[in-house]
Amino acid sequence: MIDAHERVTGRINYALNIELPGMLYGKILRSPFPHARVVHIDSSAAERLTGVATVLTRGDFTQASGYSAKYGRIFRDQSVVALDKVRFVGDPVAAVAAANDDIAEEALSLIKVDYEEFPAVFDEAEALKGDAPLVHDPRPEQQAIFNNLIQALPGGSNLCSHFKLRRGDVEAGFHQADFVYEDLFRSPAVQHVPLEPHVTVAQFFHGKLTLWTSTQMPHAVRSQMAELLHLPLARVRVIVETLGGGFGSKGSLRLEPLAAFLALKANRPVKIVLTREEEFVTVCKHPATIRIKTGVMKDGTLVARQVTAHFNTGAYSDVGPVVARNGGSAMSGPYKIPHVRIDSFAVWTNLVPAGALRGFGVPQAVWAYESQMDMIAERLRLDPIELRRKNLLRDDDLFATGETLTDLHFDELLDRAADSVQWTAGDARWNQSAHATDKNSATRRGKGLALVIKATITPSISAAALKLNEDGSLNVLTSSVECGQGAKTVLAQIAADAMQVPLERVSVSDPDTDLTPYDQQTSSSRTTFSMGGAVTKAAEDLKRQLLSHATELLEASVDDLVLANGRVTVRGTSDRFLSYGAIAMRSNQANLMGHGSFSTRGGLDLETGQGIGSVHWHQGAIGCEVEVDIETGKIKVLRLSPSVFAGRVVNPRLCELQLEGCAIFGVGQALLEEMIYDDRGQLLNTNLSDYNIPSFDDIPEQMSLSALEHGAEELHGIGETLLPPVMAAIGNAVYNAVGVRIRDLPLTAEKILRQLHKL
Amino acid sequence: MIDAHERVTGRINYALNIELPGMLYGKILRSPFPHARVVHIDSSAAERLTGVATVLTRGDFTQASGYSAKYGRIFRDQSVVALDKVRFVGDPVAAVAAANDDIAEEALSLIKVDYEEFPAVFDEAEALKGDAPLVHDPRPEQQAIFNNLIQALPGGSNLCSHFKLRRGDVEAGFHQADFVYEDLFRSPAVQHVPLEPHVTVAQFFHGKLTLWTSTQMPHAVRSQMAELLHLPLARVRVIVETLGGGFGSKGSLRLEPLAAFLALKANRPVKIVLTREEEFVTVCKHPATIRIKTGVMKDGTLVARQVTAHFNTGAYSDVGPVVARNGGSAMSGPYKIPHVRIDSFAVWTNLVPAGALRGFGVPQAVWAYESQMDMIAERLRLDPIELRRKNLLRDDDLFATGETLTDLHFDELLDRAADSVQWTAGDARWNQSAHATDKNSATRRGKGLALVIKATITPSISAAALKLNEDGSLNVLTSSVECGQGAKTVLAQIAADAMQVPLERVSVSDPDTDLTPYDQQTSSSRTTFSMGGAVTKAAEDLKRQLLSHATELLEASVDDLVLANGRVTVRGTSDRFLSYGAIAMRSNQANLMGHGSFSTRGGLDLETGQGIGSVHWHQGAIGCEVEVDIETGKIKVLRLSPSVFAGRVVNPRLCELQLEGCAIFGVGQALLEEMIYDDRGQLLNTNLSDYNIPSFDDIPEQMSLSALEHGAEELHGIGETLLPPVMAAIGNAVYNAVGVRIRDLPLTAEKILRQLHKL
Repeated sequence: MIDAHERVTGRINYALNIELPGMLYGKILRSPFPHARVVHIDSSAAERLTGVATVLTRGDFTQASGYSAKYGRIFRDQSVVALDKVRFVGDPVAAVAAANDDIAEEALSLIKVDYEEFPAVFDEAEALKGDAPLVHDPRPEQQAIFNNLIQALPGGSNLCSHFKLRRGDVEAGFHQADFVYEDLFRSPAVQHVPLEPHVTVAQFFHGKLTLWTSTQMPHAVRSQMAELLHLPLARVRVIVETLGGGFGSKGSLRLEPLAAFLALKANRPVKIVLTREEEFVTVCKHPATIRIKTGVMKDGTLVARQVTAHFNTGAYSDVGPVVARNGGSAMSGPYKIPHVRIDSFAVWTNLVPAGALRGFGVPQAVWAYESQMDMIAERLRLDPIELRRKNLLRDDDLFATGETLTDLHFDELLDRAADSVQWTAGDARWNQSAHATDKNSATRRGKGLALVIKATITPSISAAALKLNEDGSLNVLTSSVECGQGAKTVLAQIAADAMQVPLERVSVSDPDTDLTPYDQQTSSSRTTFSMGGAVTKAAEDLKRQLLSHATELLEASVDDLVLANGRVTVRGTSDRFLSYGAIAMRSNQANLMGHGSFSTRGGLDLETGQGIGSVHWHQGAIGCEVEVDIETGKIKVLRLSPSVFAGRVVNPRLCELQLEGCAIFGVGQALLEEMIYDDRGQLLNTNLSDYNIPSFDDIPEQMSLSALEHGAEELHGIGETLLPPVMAAIGNAVYNAVGVRIRDLPLTAEKILRQLHKL
Repeated sequence: MIDAHERVTGRINYALNIELPGMLYGKILRSPFPHARVVHIDSSAAERLTGVATVLTRGDFTQASGYSAKYGRIFRDQSVVALDKVRFVGDPVAAVAAANDDIAEEALSLIKVDYEEFPAVFDEAEALKGDAPLVHDPRPEQQAIFNNLIQALPGGSNLCSHFKLRRGDVEAGFHQADFVYEDLFRSPAVQHVPLEPHVTVAQFFHGKLTLWTSTQMPHAVRSQMAELLHLPLARVRVIVETLGGGFGSKGSLRLEPLAAFLALKANRPVKIVLTREEEFVTVCKHPATIRIKTGVMKDGTLVARQVTAHFNTGAYSDVGPVVARNGGSAMSGPYKIPHVRIDSFAVWTNLVPAGALRGFGVPQAVWAYESQMDMIAERLRLDPIELRRKNLLRDDDLFATGETLTDLHFDELLDRAADSVQWTAGDARWNQSAHATDKNSATRRGKGLALVIKATITPSISAAALKLNEDGSLNVLTSSVECGQGAKTVLAQIAADAMQVPLERVSVSDPDTDLTPYDQQTSSSRTTFSMGGAVTKAAEDLKRQLLSHATELLEASVDDLVLANGRVTVRGTSDRFLSYGAIAMRSNQANLMGHGSFSTRGGLDLETGQGIGSVHWHQGAIGCEVEVDIETGKIKVLRLSPSVFAGRVVNPRLCELQLEGCAIFGVGQALLEEMIYDDRGQLLNTNLSDYNIPSFDDIPEQMSLSALEHGAEELHGIGETLLPPVMAAIGNAVYNAVGVRIRDLPLTAEKILRQLHKL
């Protein structure tokens, strides 16, 4: 990885490092109530404090100001600071820009806010009851660009969005089935915990805003900030230095509006850095309740599935409707099910806003459907592998969305998962095999596995440019964000490979919306696939230009020219050649620029969920073995084996690291992670002592990572695929070990013990 | 001007403002001797000082290091730090990077250097004598790229370069002439005095160098640094924030090698900022001695001119050979002279290196030839305007280089200069008009004028790109450097105009060699002309793309489409249109990129100076009136009227400001500025108390600025044209006032009094 050394030694450039002359430091005053009217704000004492440059409150967003505070990716339901009311504990009410953090903190304490408390609602099911307090009233305006993705709904409800998938006749299917099983699964809110917190620096300069910000979506930040500030896109510049992890948390407007309006008001640059505590109240993974009802024949053939999923999107929807849609469309799993009916809802509550987190709704879905698959297998006394194999999607099968799938490799992935834990027919617990490592020991071992099918965002667009320098070296211009995932390394490899130049002669840019081409976002495992495709096309364009100039300069026909080793050579000669650099210099432009864009098309019908859900489908499997201490309830993951179908692997080591990262993330979500609220919506564990992520001790001793390529030419992303199935695989292994079926994540020792004692 | 407010209020981003984590501060140890062998350097005490990260000396450039310290635009005659010897007082011997400036300064004092002094040579004529000490021995290697511009010379001499121009038969011309006058003129070394000193920040990062540096030549810095560091161009990134003035001083490698090698050695970022004192020993305008011999008929017709010019390029040649060439090729002035012989030399001495300064050799040339024109007029008892008019170059005349000139406007420029001071036939002093404003007063008034013809660098290449955003706003990608001259404003205007979008929807980049297209340099009054041309071509490319997409989207033929107001409309309709942004979005690329490059061709024969010297010729005239106090010798410039042929003026206010800036610079060089050395090569006036630049009091009360356009379509640069003639115009006016002819600049009160007392 190109920047491994700088990253590991902490020398890499983060937005946190930006220091500008006269820069102010911003701090945010947050609501202590989950739901309250803001009666009055008095910031005068704060404004008088020495060192305070400005205080931003709703008073800056009066009609007279000309600025609306409202923003949001899908619904304009969020505001820069609270206008009429606050909607969760942590909701920004005001912000201060001051000479340093301490003064800014002190100023926050001087702002007097009178609140009138309202009843609040936290549970996603409660929130949909008729008498539930309304989080948003009137219903927030939906961004027109999402009208063909998210169905318009009436107001007067906390229902934010409703994704529908209708395939076959689910009632007929249940009627036809020998058995119908209905189970309920829950996933809690969890944190992304990037080591780098959210950071934004904003500067206004001759009527132009420059943002250095830790975002995965520079162009989306640019367009939303341009809208908020009534500026043309050319007057909003978003520069992204490398991120210290994103995992979806840095995928929407976060600190940018606050920093920009503070900078505008103070007429000085402003930096805001979130504390870890604030990270917890900024964005999280959706808590979800998924009711899954599956009809099955005696032999295990799946015939119908109905799913009702509620994604708790918290106080502000962010990308919640798309998460609910993406999770919803995946609920049939990698299985042939003729009759499917899915209703997936995003629901507003008075909790921390939920957004994208590695997997985008699919982790919640897989937790439900792969847990249930093992439960069905037991009920039918089938080996869970055989039950899966019987129903696996194979080439040319139709998916629940009605699209025909190809290039499927679930059989092999399932084999790999099974082999990785030496699964044998006797391993199913319901086959009465015992699992104690030693009959006198308190530990029991069990094996489990799970599969996943996951979309990549479709439609999608990426553009790239290749600048060929006078010496034939290449600058890749891209707006893909390096989050530590290795984007720059992989794009450099793709460019070097396509142009036939050594890797060390290629340099990949960071995003700068003034200068680098458009990219939709760095998320959804799409960079290698989509931006890689754009780089490949840019290389084709550049090669065309090189050949066109070379035909003239070398007086040869295009067919007689060969591009290799940074040169264009006349075929069959060794002395009739020009280096790329020489061609560029003689082209009268000094640089040659190649451009490429890569776009995909697709979409699902709003009423039926039928259409093209994904231009290709990510496929993965996890096998695992756990050890459960029946005296303490503690679970230890002994072995974890993620396998993925990766298309063509560009960088095997980075691919492995992504699989490993997914697996470790999954272990955290399986065993440890949960944001715990009290009954007044106050988050209780907003630090990394009370909220645990996996330590080195939690990482399985044995991890075997495997990526199938099958001679594929197409690049797939592999940044998320293997997280979603980890929790179900571990849950299934725990059941296999001790017969305890946990339906609500995480699989804590307390839950294990409680159920063991019930036994 | 787009950034006027930020510039005036001091909020603009300079490289000086860059702060990076872990950044070190560099200071330079300089030679106290003009010419000496470096016997021994002991930096151990400095290295041990707490807070010192590293000391860079010649020990870092041993053969084993793999790095050569040698660099230079034309000759590799400069070195990062002194290797064998030092060549002027101020020559860098070592550099320190430390935690702060004070520690770095202290460390410098701890470095022990033993020198063995050599005889030194300072005068450009002395330096060419056979027994003169050799500044460089052996002769430094010439960069191959200059081989067709600068003639190769043998070693063993301080002669750096020799430009020859041969036209007609100059001896025959002198023979034919009624009179032959030979005069000698001198110009001293002067400073650029940009308010912003030289600043460089260097950072190494995954084997890639990033420089934030105050340079006018980002691409030349990139290529030279890549060569020094053995890196591909893609691994050297040069970012230029705005400059606080350049005037040619920031046109070659300055601090970049020192900062980069310190950063490489310390493995931390390093910033170096020059003090004003150090600015004085970094680069200056060439001292020049010009002997000019002109043959003329009784009626004033010029028939022959021979010039021998010596440009003192100091210890290192920088761009001296090109300055000598450019000044040399201009020595015939805007006059028809059938027989011309010019020899223009750049000479190495033990003085501060001389390089480019606003006008590039032409100020020295004009000082000589326009002073002599007035002297000839008096000798012939002709009105100096009539003498000039008799000989002016007019359309289709041949220049001394043999090229046919067109679009000449010297007659009108001469009229403007004369009219601006209400010149009448009686104004010539030799016509015995008296000039005392009041016979009892000690002040005498006089009028003077001077003309100039000046090349723009040819051949030349600039490239630009226009990024059309999703909302139809434009980002202009250019590597032109904003020095305060208004480059960004003018390029924005050109782009807005070409694309038919409002100016506020256009944003112009700063240079970033990773991302912005190639540009040769920001100098030679070429940005509006050359980069403006590239932007215009990029707009043409972009419009072609817009039309091509629009024909499909609007189902109309290209001929029926009209581009206006940010839209493509079907001719004759008001509702069949698409905004540029909509076309970009529907083009499947989200952005459209237009590219353009603008290049010119030309060149002069090495033996004869015949060929194409300039793709067009800058033309200007100055009229002025001065008042001289015959008791104090003090000169006051009462009126100064620069007129230029500007081609099409893009921004009249900026054009005026450039003329005004030239005039004020010229007043400084005429009256005040001179770097004064003692007889051991020690510069005596290295601060702005002892070295005076014009204050508001020195600026003429009446300045009338005029730019001729004549319906021209072509853009000319006007950044330098009017500086070169100011000194001669003032010198001529002083003579006109008090009959004192000063041949060596500046026109100090002491020189006036000394000659007046001789009278």
